[in-house]
Amino acid sequence: MRPEVDCGRFPVKRVVGEAVQVEADVFTDGHDAVVAMLFFRHESEKAWRSVPMEFRHNDHWAARFQCEKLGRYEYTVRGWADPFLTWQRDLRKRRDAGQDLSVDFLIGACLLPESTPLRGILADAARSGEERFEAAMKIAPPPPEPARVTSYERVLEVVVEPLHARFSSWYELFPRSVRGDGSHATFRDVAERLPYLADLGFDILYLPPIHPIGVTARKGKNNKVSAEPGDVGSPWAIGAKEGGHKAIHPDLGSFDDFAYLVEKAKQSNIRIALDIAFQVSPDHPYVTEHPKWFRWRPDGTVQYAENPPKKYQDIYPFEFESEEWPELFDELKSVFEFWIAKGVRVFRVDNPHTKPFAFWEWCITELRRQHPDVVFLSEAFTRPRVMHRLAKLGFSQSYTYFTWRNAKQELVEYFTELSQHPSREYFRPNVWPNTPDILHEFLQKNGRPAFISRVVLAATL
Amino acid sequence: MRPEVDCGRFPVKRVVGEAVQVEADVFTDGHDAVVAMLFFRHESEKAWRSVPMEFRHNDHWAARFQCEKLGRYEYTVRGWADPFLTWQRDLRKRRDAGQDLSVDFLIGACLLPESTPLRGILADAARSGEERFEAAMKIAPPPPEPARVTSYERVLEVVVEPLHARFSSWYELFPRSVRGDGSHATFRDVAERLPYLADLGFDILYLPPIHPIGVTARKGKNNKVSAEPGDVGSPWAIGAKEGGHKAIHPDLGSFDDFAYLVEKAKQSNIRIALDIAFQVSPDHPYVTEHPKWFRWRPDGTVQYAENPPKKYQDIYPFEFESEEWPELFDELKSVFEFWIAKGVRVFRVDNPHTKPFAFWEWCITELRRQHPDVVFLSEAFTRPRVMHRLAKLGFSQSYTYFTWRNAKQELVEYFTELSQHPSREYFRPNVWPNTPDILHEFLQKNGRPAFISRVVLAATL
Repeated sequence: MRPEVDCGRFPVKRVVGEAVQVEADVFTDGHDAVVAMLFFRHESEKAWRSVPMEFRHNDHWAARFQCEKLGRYEYTVRGWADPFLTWQRDLRKRRDAGQDLSVDFLIGACLLPESTPLRGILADAARSGEERFEAAMKIAPPPPEPARVTSYERVLEVVVEPLHARFSSWYELFPRSVRGDGSHATFRDVAERLPYLADLGFDILYLPPIHPIGVTARKGKNNKVSAEPGDVGSPWAIGAKEGGHKAIHPDLGSFDDFAYLVEKAKQSNIRIALDIAFQVSPDHPYVTEHPKWFRWRPDGTVQYAENPPKKYQDIYPFEFESEEWPELFDELKSVFEFWIAKGVRVFRVDNPHTKPFAFWEWCITELRRQHPDVVFLSEAFTRPRVMHRLAKLGFSQSYTYFTWRNAKQELVEYFTELSQHPSREYFRPNVWPNTPDILHEFLQKNGRPAFISRVVLAATL
Repeated sequence: MRPEVDCGRFPVKRVVGEAVQVEADVFTDGHDAVVAMLFFRHESEKAWRSVPMEFRHNDHWAARFQCEKLGRYEYTVRGWADPFLTWQRDLRKRRDAGQDLSVDFLIGACLLPESTPLRGILADAARSGEERFEAAMKIAPPPPEPARVTSYERVLEVVVEPLHARFSSWYELFPRSVRGDGSHATFRDVAERLPYLADLGFDILYLPPIHPIGVTARKGKNNKVSAEPGDVGSPWAIGAKEGGHKAIHPDLGSFDDFAYLVEKAKQSNIRIALDIAFQVSPDHPYVTEHPKWFRWRPDGTVQYAENPPKKYQDIYPFEFESEEWPELFDELKSVFEFWIAKGVRVFRVDNPHTKPFAFWEWCITELRRQHPDVVFLSEAFTRPRVMHRLAKLGFSQSYTYFTWRNAKQELVEYFTELSQHPSREYFRPNVWPNTPDILHEFLQKNGRPAFISRVVLAATL
């Protein structure tokens, strides 16, 4: 049976309007004629819909159903050996061989309910063989006895998302830098850029974190460990006295300004994507309000982020193994809900692989139940099994290794994998030519022609 | 996880002394150090045995266990993120970077039970950093908290059979024809051939059915539909007034003669394989004793075997959909048990694909529970899915398409499939150069050299 991900542990993915082509080996012992049916239903439907499967070759059958709306569909396959179809098939062979069919007609009649039209002709020994044969061929097989029907061991699922979960063109900018003259810009400045971005063909505008930025241990320019006065800090050091993940950096504007940006974007057919980075600066209100959401060291300090021997003192990770994990999970989910209420439906999730798999599966499933149009992009630059797991758990799209695939052979191999491997059922690539923290040597050394070729590849592959 | 057949629905196969190489992707979110263990036990053991898995590459781990005895083994994989191993790994990186470790030593001590040897040194601020570091590196991680351990979703199984289930050289002969001078031979004549067969290198002697042969609608020589007086009939038309599947054809000898043959074979290191053909002649005692085990036609006759438009009036198939199927299943299983009690441990099963899959799974599993050394060869010349299903259900070996693969390319492709495809975990090929009813054109036309080359291929491939 396919598509099926990890023995049905995870759903496959589709977007509205796409079909699921279901293929299965359906066979039984002996030589009886087999019938195979695909069953499917949307999560909102109680009754199964069904479509007959078509025999392909070598006991392999296929059928498809259309994903008409957002949400989850279930599907499975049922099959049975059909005594009447078997009898019809064999009757034709016997008749073609010129055999006497009188007993066979009676056998066929016994396979039918009394009320079956034409059954009388079939059973009527006074009629001619040819008349009875023609009646036999016209009779539709009665529905199978339930005990004859074998269902596939599992009911499988498909998650149906909006089209832009599969195909969308993302543009990333730092709102504060959008003026280009070095002065600190706002959401209203960003709004002015929208027609230009729409004209370029982009349909999603992704903003790095827009929240207040911490001052404790703030990083400086050009890799400097400490900030100079006036340095703006990294937007990923989220949280200050002005607020945390549910606040806006005062320099960028108000909630009204943000609403204006979302509305203007809509007019340009552009969706605003926000960055969800589940970490805090030491100044985030969570640190004092929920000390148990962090890991405390024996010296009474909070454990800051590390990738030993590297230290990131301006960032505190959450302690997901805290005894207060249920409250932490709920609060983090509510961050998505907060911005969903502000009109955001697309989220780029920062480093999801450093938060629990179990959190993502629960959080995304719950959010999607209420808001099946929400799209999640996984910013996981890590090992393939982990990136694939995040995709299985629910992320709509994922960052990829595209940035590091520059030679022709590399591109051919990688895009063959992305487009042909069974992982295509759940892993949707998003190919960024570069990002603020990854500028490949190829782009660094080869100037504008390199950027152009990478953009064209990203757009067309 | 592999090996795994159909999401664990079916066991894999091994013979005594073979290992199961288990491979699994084991990983978690974040950057913690991961431990993976393979767990296994024989069905006779209550306690699991375990062996640490070795990291290979790309989150892939491997370990193996030895199948020491007949029967079933269970196996699965468990993994966990280990806080102490993670701490040790990071401590080394911090120390190599020359960082102050005083707080880290205290963090490490907190991860250990009070009673851990060397913990005191680790926690002792009066000791030198190097002394504490060396103590830290010597401490074995404590066993994981049960809540940290993730088990693979399924416990998988392996069926362990005797070596000859995997590799054995079969010789087939009709006992009545063994004299070679046209006179009707007996088991005692067969026994005289045993040293010759052993000398040729065969270790299994397979006898087509040895039971009384029906006289009603007996077939003649050379495809004649009716027998002439003196025609011996087909051994597969089983059953006459002398008895059925638990009787011996009187011309072949007595049960004492059969016991003599089995004993003589053992002295030549040859095992006797019997043919189990679950069908009867119209004269089989079952027909009158158990009329419900057959399908009755509206004209009051029993349905004989057919492959429309072909008719085989000398054979009645069993009606497995009879309401008396439990009695029929029990009786058929008892046929195996009858011959097991007579010293037979190898069975060649005739046309298993025309009997219910459910029957074979139940019958073989039950027989093997009592007699784990019994070997079953499936004579299924049919479609690949069906042949594979029979292998999954429990057959030790299967006939193959070898007979029809004569060109080099055909042989390369087919034996690559047999030896490299995942089906190698359950499908063991038995390659007959020819059989009494299949003599390929290649052998018909090319004489002795063709036979020699096919025998050599069968023996060496």
